[in-house]
Amino acid sequence: MKKVSIAPNGTEYNIPTEEESKQELKILKKITKEQNEKGRKIVAVQGMGFVGCVMATVVADAEAENGEPLYFVHGQQRASLRSYWKVPVINTGNPPVSSSDKEVPEIFQRTVVEKKTFRATWLNYAYEVADIVVVDIQLDATKPAFGDAGQGYCDLSAFRDGMKTLGKHIKPECMILVETTVPPGTCEKVVKPIIEEEFQKRGIDTKQNPPLIAHSYERVMPGANYVSSIRDFWRVYSGVNEKSKKLAREFLENILDTKNYPLTELGSTNASELSKVMENSYRATNIALTLEWAKFAEKIGVDLHKVRAAIRKREGTHDNLLRPSLGVGGYCLTKDPVLANWAMNAIFEIDDKLGMAINAVNINDTMPLHTIELIQEEYPELRDVKIAVLGVSYLEDLGDTRHSPSATLIKNLNESWAIVQAHDPYVEFWPEMENVQVMQDLEKVVKDADVVIFAVGHSEYKNIRPAELLQKAGTKPLIIDCSNFLTDEKISKYLKLGCKIKGVGKGHIENL
Amino acid sequence: MKKVSIAPNGTEYNIPTEEESKQELKILKKITKEQNEKGRKIVAVQGMGFVGCVMATVVADAEAENGEPLYFVHGQQRASLRSYWKVPVINTGNPPVSSSDKEVPEIFQRTVVEKKTFRATWLNYAYEVADIVVVDIQLDATKPAFGDAGQGYCDLSAFRDGMKTLGKHIKPECMILVETTVPPGTCEKVVKPIIEEEFQKRGIDTKQNPPLIAHSYERVMPGANYVSSIRDFWRVYSGVNEKSKKLAREFLENILDTKNYPLTELGSTNASELSKVMENSYRATNIALTLEWAKFAEKIGVDLHKVRAAIRKREGTHDNLLRPSLGVGGYCLTKDPVLANWAMNAIFEIDDKLGMAINAVNINDTMPLHTIELIQEEYPELRDVKIAVLGVSYLEDLGDTRHSPSATLIKNLNESWAIVQAHDPYVEFWPEMENVQVMQDLEKVVKDADVVIFAVGHSEYKNIRPAELLQKAGTKPLIIDCSNFLTDEKISKYLKLGCKIKGVGKGHIENL
Repeated sequence: MKKVSIAPNGTEYNIPTEEESKQELKILKKITKEQNEKGRKIVAVQGMGFVGCVMATVVADAEAENGEPLYFVHGQQRASLRSYWKVPVINTGNPPVSSSDKEVPEIFQRTVVEKKTFRATWLNYAYEVADIVVVDIQLDATKPAFGDAGQGYCDLSAFRDGMKTLGKHIKPECMILVETTVPPGTCEKVVKPIIEEEFQKRGIDTKQNPPLIAHSYERVMPGANYVSSIRDFWRVYSGVNEKSKKLAREFLENILDTKNYPLTELGSTNASELSKVMENSYRATNIALTLEWAKFAEKIGVDLHKVRAAIRKREGTHDNLLRPSLGVGGYCLTKDPVLANWAMNAIFEIDDKLGMAINAVNINDTMPLHTIELIQEEYPELRDVKIAVLGVSYLEDLGDTRHSPSATLIKNLNESWAIVQAHDPYVEFWPEMENVQVMQDLEKVVKDADVVIFAVGHSEYKNIRPAELLQKAGTKPLIIDCSNFLTDEKISKYLKLGCKIKGVGKGHIENL
Repeated sequence: MKKVSIAPNGTEYNIPTEEESKQELKILKKITKEQNEKGRKIVAVQGMGFVGCVMATVVADAEAENGEPLYFVHGQQRASLRSYWKVPVINTGNPPVSSSDKEVPEIFQRTVVEKKTFRATWLNYAYEVADIVVVDIQLDATKPAFGDAGQGYCDLSAFRDGMKTLGKHIKPECMILVETTVPPGTCEKVVKPIIEEEFQKRGIDTKQNPPLIAHSYERVMPGANYVSSIRDFWRVYSGVNEKSKKLAREFLENILDTKNYPLTELGSTNASELSKVMENSYRATNIALTLEWAKFAEKIGVDLHKVRAAIRKREGTHDNLLRPSLGVGGYCLTKDPVLANWAMNAIFEIDDKLGMAINAVNINDTMPLHTIELIQEEYPELRDVKIAVLGVSYLEDLGDTRHSPSATLIKNLNESWAIVQAHDPYVEFWPEMENVQVMQDLEKVVKDADVVIFAVGHSEYKNIRPAELLQKAGTKPLIIDCSNFLTDEKISKYLKLGCKIKGVGKGHIENL
């Protein structure tokens, strides 16, 4: 049986044969020779995921002052059924991820096709010739119980395997730059011992050649400025020794706009790793706080979103205050506090916990239940209530569904036997909720609805006119505004048209 | 026996006799006539405390475009033994509060002596002639159990009495502007019913003349820009009805720099009251979060203060992140979450609580215990350990000791039978800790010390050279840095001189 890896668009790619791997090795050797002759350093990026593949293009796009490319980049992707398709896709100059950022296809075309400084491969040989390996292996937190993030842990086994692979292949003087968000302590207490062990197996004297390991985390923002959020933004870094720090600094200065966004060096990789998970824990805590005030505001006739705007006028001291909503999704705020809390015990053997940060994750993970409470004020019994959910991604005008709070919302509504229909203009397939059909036809979704939930602030939803929505629905549904997506003017119109409206933090509606 | 009110400098003032009150009434009548003839409105400020007396000068200093004063201000202070002295002090053009802001004595001199637009009085007659009353009555939260802010409550009885006084005396068309930080709901559910009741007793038709009540909170920052922080800063306001809102806006536009700091009108006084306590709860929560990360950083060799600086580079999204320290003091962050939590039940009868905000207060209130833990790593038994505490105020370079965390620190050290000496260049008398003698002679305080705690970041402390401190001490004390007051360079020097050093969030010291 032929083994194939299937791309999201359905195209099938055969998993390479042994013969093809032999050919690939020849190609890699030829490239190495050519690139070395051009004086370019070889970079391997481990992991062609959301961050890794774009990071690879940013490195491949870096130039010296004379316009000469500084690096040749191998994007390493194992020949697995699940992900091998990325190799041929990238090598035709196309991004293996979809993004609303126009620069994404441009930078793939430029680096793969025009400059020929970026190429994907499935061979570990890429590591053997690399001067620098950038680690972008995906690393998740597992939360075994809903609403109890204190039980959360991090399964490092795939990450450890990745490090073993590096230890077996890299040159002793190769610098490993870990870009993955990792539990604090990972570089010193996980990566370093593994590389040392593999080096020693290969007969490398690790006193003479201590592994060069650095950490620098990305601060990627999905959306229209995706590439720029990698390249043109403040970075923090450190290394396990002075040489690693120096190499990391030189590399980052070459590839990023460090003139406008100066680098920050921290004392240790522990510090750099902690910095990443702390900054996301700060945001997570900030959001969690707003929920309890939203509930208070709802009960005393106050629009918390206007209060928030008033508070945020205090620039520099109060303008980070975030907003309550359906809930918190995405890849960072939902897991980073868990990584840190877990590391405290599992990596450092400290008998303590990060109580506030973990409490914040619990509040955020269960936040969608508050939207259900709002529905239940009108429909105490949810069975057979027809509910239209507008938006299933976790962010405005984006199709990213990772850890989307709409998933929690819909799961819980389904469990109460409500009849849920989901809509999202950016999401055709919802990998985390395969049994939910996400529709693109708004009319179908809202038709006959008892409840319409404005779950995500997609522009399309903000622009719907109340009369239009009611005409599509053919009912006067209860409208739920999950985060200030409807203006007071629109709310007044819905009220005039005979709808009831409720909203997270929107206690003022009854006075309108 | 003659009744006297004693000013902080020891000067005695006789409580006014009946005859003097009669004379005072004549004066007030004369002033009213004069000021009315000049077309000025009469403002009474209720409460000559920290905020009220300076607010009074800001109002008295307001001018029309032609330079004519807009208001005449009566500073109303009851003839109590505790506070009557403020009346004669103010009326000689001197502030009854001490401040590092040079503008404070200037604006008292200008308004009382030069413009003659501000005068203090003990008579309620001030309210009878007022067009506007600004309420600056002090209002505290009571926390009956240390570390259990959920039990905290707000005793409104003095505040209610103040409102009754207004209801008995003010003209029906007088606007009451509550500036005191109050539990949400106070204007609508406490002030309004009291004024209505008193109006009705006086035969005023409250349908015809509904009380005019507005709320606008100050955002005072003690310190060098004290007056400016009242006058030149963003303000939020609302009123119990449209007319109150309009009058409040006109008044605030007259007295504040609303061109550069535009006003924000909120929908109700509930919203305005909530906004104030929420913004301080946001700060309190932010600080509380940092403690758990500080403890983590201490244990893994990380300087959390450098991590914080790295995170705060993200302007607009992460730059509000505050720092761990000895603890949280002052008048706002320690009580405002309690006011809100209490109001939820006591004023609105909502069966819920502000869990995160209250948890934050608990963490902040008990934060000084962490500094004691740091000491106990070296001195598990605190009995007879000589400890010098440098700084007892709650803020750098200020003499304000309200709810100072040094009080909690010293109380707990005393309970463990440590021998504590306290120093502060700005504090001669510590009203909250009358039995602690605060010394100004650093040498005396650190002499023979086993432990020296840098508790507050007064410039004087930041400037002490390590050799100088050790020479004064005559010992090699354990140095405790409560919030990044010592540079790495200084820490290295202390280490070289044979001292041990520990600090809140400063885990990197052992690697220096």
